[in-house]
Amino acid sequence: MHRYRSHTCGELREEHIGETVRISGWVHRIRDHGGVLFIDLRDHYGLTQCVADPDSSAFKHVEKVRSEWVIRIEGTVRKRPAGTENAELPTGQIELFIKDVETLGAAAELPLPVFGEPDYPEDIRLRYRFIDLRRETLHKNIMTRTKIVSSMRRRMGDAGFTEFATPILTASSPEGARDFLVPSRIHPGNFYALPQAPQQYKQLLMIAGFDRYFQIAPCFRDEDPRADRLPGEFYQLDLEMSFVEQEDVFSTMEPVLRGVFEEFAEGKPVTPSFPRIRYSDAMLKYGSDKPDLRNPIVIADVSSEFTKEEVTFNAFKNVVASGGVVRAIPAPGAATQPRSFFDKLNDWARGEGAPGLGYIVFDDESGVLTGKGPIAKFLPADVQASIASTAGIGAGDAVFFSAGVEDKAAKLAGAARIRVGEELGLIDKDRFELAWIVDFPFYEWNEEEKKVDFSHNPFSMPQGGLEALQTKDPLTIPAFQYDLVCNGYEIASGGIRNHRPETMIKAFEIAGYGEETVIERFGGMYRAFQYGAPPHGGMAAGVDRIVMLLCGAQSVREIALFPMNQRAEDILMGAPATATPKQLRELHIRVNLPEK
Amino acid sequence: MHRYRSHTCGELREEHIGETVRISGWVHRIRDHGGVLFIDLRDHYGLTQCVADPDSSAFKHVEKVRSEWVIRIEGTVRKRPAGTENAELPTGQIELFIKDVETLGAAAELPLPVFGEPDYPEDIRLRYRFIDLRRETLHKNIMTRTKIVSSMRRRMGDAGFTEFATPILTASSPEGARDFLVPSRIHPGNFYALPQAPQQYKQLLMIAGFDRYFQIAPCFRDEDPRADRLPGEFYQLDLEMSFVEQEDVFSTMEPVLRGVFEEFAEGKPVTPSFPRIRYSDAMLKYGSDKPDLRNPIVIADVSSEFTKEEVTFNAFKNVVASGGVVRAIPAPGAATQPRSFFDKLNDWARGEGAPGLGYIVFDDESGVLTGKGPIAKFLPADVQASIASTAGIGAGDAVFFSAGVEDKAAKLAGAARIRVGEELGLIDKDRFELAWIVDFPFYEWNEEEKKVDFSHNPFSMPQGGLEALQTKDPLTIPAFQYDLVCNGYEIASGGIRNHRPETMIKAFEIAGYGEETVIERFGGMYRAFQYGAPPHGGMAAGVDRIVMLLCGAQSVREIALFPMNQRAEDILMGAPATATPKQLRELHIRVNLPEK
Repeated sequence: MHRYRSHTCGELREEHIGETVRISGWVHRIRDHGGVLFIDLRDHYGLTQCVADPDSSAFKHVEKVRSEWVIRIEGTVRKRPAGTENAELPTGQIELFIKDVETLGAAAELPLPVFGEPDYPEDIRLRYRFIDLRRETLHKNIMTRTKIVSSMRRRMGDAGFTEFATPILTASSPEGARDFLVPSRIHPGNFYALPQAPQQYKQLLMIAGFDRYFQIAPCFRDEDPRADRLPGEFYQLDLEMSFVEQEDVFSTMEPVLRGVFEEFAEGKPVTPSFPRIRYSDAMLKYGSDKPDLRNPIVIADVSSEFTKEEVTFNAFKNVVASGGVVRAIPAPGAATQPRSFFDKLNDWARGEGAPGLGYIVFDDESGVLTGKGPIAKFLPADVQASIASTAGIGAGDAVFFSAGVEDKAAKLAGAARIRVGEELGLIDKDRFELAWIVDFPFYEWNEEEKKVDFSHNPFSMPQGGLEALQTKDPLTIPAFQYDLVCNGYEIASGGIRNHRPETMIKAFEIAGYGEETVIERFGGMYRAFQYGAPPHGGMAAGVDRIVMLLCGAQSVREIALFPMNQRAEDILMGAPATATPKQLRELHIRVNLPEK
Repeated sequence: MHRYRSHTCGELREEHIGETVRISGWVHRIRDHGGVLFIDLRDHYGLTQCVADPDSSAFKHVEKVRSEWVIRIEGTVRKRPAGTENAELPTGQIELFIKDVETLGAAAELPLPVFGEPDYPEDIRLRYRFIDLRRETLHKNIMTRTKIVSSMRRRMGDAGFTEFATPILTASSPEGARDFLVPSRIHPGNFYALPQAPQQYKQLLMIAGFDRYFQIAPCFRDEDPRADRLPGEFYQLDLEMSFVEQEDVFSTMEPVLRGVFEEFAEGKPVTPSFPRIRYSDAMLKYGSDKPDLRNPIVIADVSSEFTKEEVTFNAFKNVVASGGVVRAIPAPGAATQPRSFFDKLNDWARGEGAPGLGYIVFDDESGVLTGKGPIAKFLPADVQASIASTAGIGAGDAVFFSAGVEDKAAKLAGAARIRVGEELGLIDKDRFELAWIVDFPFYEWNEEEKKVDFSHNPFSMPQGGLEALQTKDPLTIPAFQYDLVCNGYEIASGGIRNHRPETMIKAFEIAGYGEETVIERFGGMYRAFQYGAPPHGGMAAGVDRIVMLLCGAQSVREIALFPMNQRAEDILMGAPATATPKQLRELHIRVNLPEK
């Protein structure tokens, strides 16, 4: 028989009854039932109930064993006594009568228990991550993660993509975040940078002629820790394709990503065909460029109502008169809500810096839709009716208003939409609603620096190409740039790239960067554009976010193997740590501590 | 029709004749045959011959096109004229008569050509890697690499392994080489390190209960550049298994790796069952722990011959008398070689720092095996016969001798074995000979520091465990540590790990490290051993080396996508580079340039 196991702890069934077998694993739980000892032995594959009674020669050894010891058990498989079977366990029909036990790895008193998974402080969980990872939920999440990644790889391969690993020690690639730097020993005073994303390399791969690239790519951004993002490193399903337009990327990647969602959704519905929503429509209808489409509320613009003379609600009239907007957020069925519901939302809006959330409640009074509430009296009946009609509202519903400068009003409306949907229980949590958000603006106005900036990716192709850049108001030019959103999260982002050097120079010029800056910062890619670059485009999907959604995890630390803590420390391995003077000397750096 | 292509450049066949199609790609070659222009259009998938004659409306545009321009061609598929078919090209039966051309990406004058692949200086090739990668050989090598990696992944999955990505920003993990350090912005004066290998993490995964881990793992070592190793980063097929002994690792991994070799060997034979060779036998018989088994020469120890009184060759007698050894390197069929053959080997040995390579040539003189050459006269006939018998030598063969301190003599014999095998053309280059080298010594003597050191991996389990450490001469203890070798290269290395904390402490104590050092340097793992560690073991195979062998590449830069140059620079992207004062300030470091 094998030194450690003839079977795994998830393998024994009734067909093995009578056999002498060996299993090895961790002591999940020990129970003493009137002098008979029960051990649930656990390994990666399952749990097996093992029994020793005082007649067993192994009894004395079994008595010594404690939780999370690693032991090897030899014994005879037997049927569990009638009534003690466990239908929820694949091995629940049998038990192993212990004949021999060997301790393979004893355990000191545990800093956190595995069995039962009680809540434990994060610092202890991360310091003893090797114990934490034994807990059923985390073990399952991590395995789901690996299966999702593996499914992505398989589906990308099936879609004709090849996986390439791009360099990790490379040059700074400004993507908006800070770089992690790596001092060079061989080149004093010089530094490598860890890639924020393989953007330039994947474009170079297209220019090198590889046609369809993908990578489960490690990306590194030295950002201040956030709850929903791992500090330091994270993974993207990164891809790029040559000779494609935007719709080709969609038609290639939609089946891949829908397939992944369907495979791991555990029966929850997944959008069968992802709608395409223009960025401007998303901002209007959902007040967000990552709308949660499980929420049935659709925001409407009712600005024009407040240009009417007969309306006397001056706060909104003034907003519209000075170029602002008024948005209506329907609250279906909210008419029956108590006053406190409306007050709470109003308070929340004030907390967000808005003057408040005006609202109207609509009732049916003798067959006439009639508005009530603080604002209603300033609006004649026909205006109320028009608002109700525009916002798709009927008797028994309410409507909230967000007014102000368009951008701010839209965002407040979007946040209100989420809150109203949550409060009214309108959001079906058990589904995955995906959509493409398209036509993002190429540029935006940087109010602080009073200049035009790239909105997202400077490498995207502006719609209309060079001609648009030469002839149009930059702030009106949309880019071939898109996001994929799911349940209120951006889960992927991409674009058709600008592969023409003259268009690249013009695009950067508009954002205030001269040719020499382009060459300095993106020299490799700019040079590459001179030597036969194909049209290309692609995207990158956030692996951690997709896994979180599919596992229903609330924190990214629940789906990552050895995450750093919120202070960007690995307290299991002890990183970051001081370096030796010899190391620093070899790397030609000195530490420069901040003054106290 | 699709904006860019209805077919790829590798897709058109006789069945498409008469169809109007679109293809896009790079202009591989342009030829003018009596006013008719031929363009070989190339993409990732193949080559298609396209034709324009002066009657074609696209002729004027085609005339302007140059090598490596990216163009879109619309045209009619037609049969090539009889006699001009190209049987070596899948599209060789047809050609595309050009009706319309669009330039998608023009190319400036090329710094290196793609067609024909003439030899070019490495600096230009790396600076314009995006062009270099279009060359047929390199493109093919890179694709083979991705297929090998993908085959490894598939085979590991089939063998029940799960792929986990371990952290890249982590703590220093002393594996013998220098770490790359990453200064922390949030923790002034502290540094992350890039992993030299995921050794500790994979062991932690076993302790966490994941049973079978693998990873195509990026590893980082700040070593001085060498011809056969990429500076900076390289990839390993890294794996670990729980509840296993050495033979389990072999029986699991041998089919995986043999399968990979067989899949990509292009019909060359691969060792059907890998022999296990003890380290000490390898050093004796091949003078190397990474023997090239395609070489049929087997070294023999003939030290005992030189203890015989009748032998008068004092140089060797003195060596043996003072504890050294004499090794015999057979040179089959070398008797017919000219004197210069022996002189050249002698000169080479002197260049290696040896006093020379003594030799005997064996002839058949009237049915008696008779030795000739400078040493022969000092050896009586029966000793000559005994040497010939021990070394497996007959008439027409020669034998060389390497004498000295065992370690040095063995290594010289090994080097001589390779040279003799090469010179005599004994090595069949068209095969892959694999073998496991086992029973590596756990410790070795560090002559410089006059102390016992770990020979290889300090995490390996010494054979005999704690008891052996407590009772035996450390230098005699073998470890459960092994290498896999192929054609003279180490392609993988591994071991059964030491999973017992008390054995770990004792093992380090023997090498001169106290418990506090173990805790300081390997704290995470040492702590983990206290809380239920299973027996486990594994290995790591060098992806770059395996790909090199299978592609028949001479340099690692021929099988890597964007390699750094020999000075550890990425001259395409411009790394390493200086950092801004702001970056350095934020990272709490200053550069400390060496004095001129």
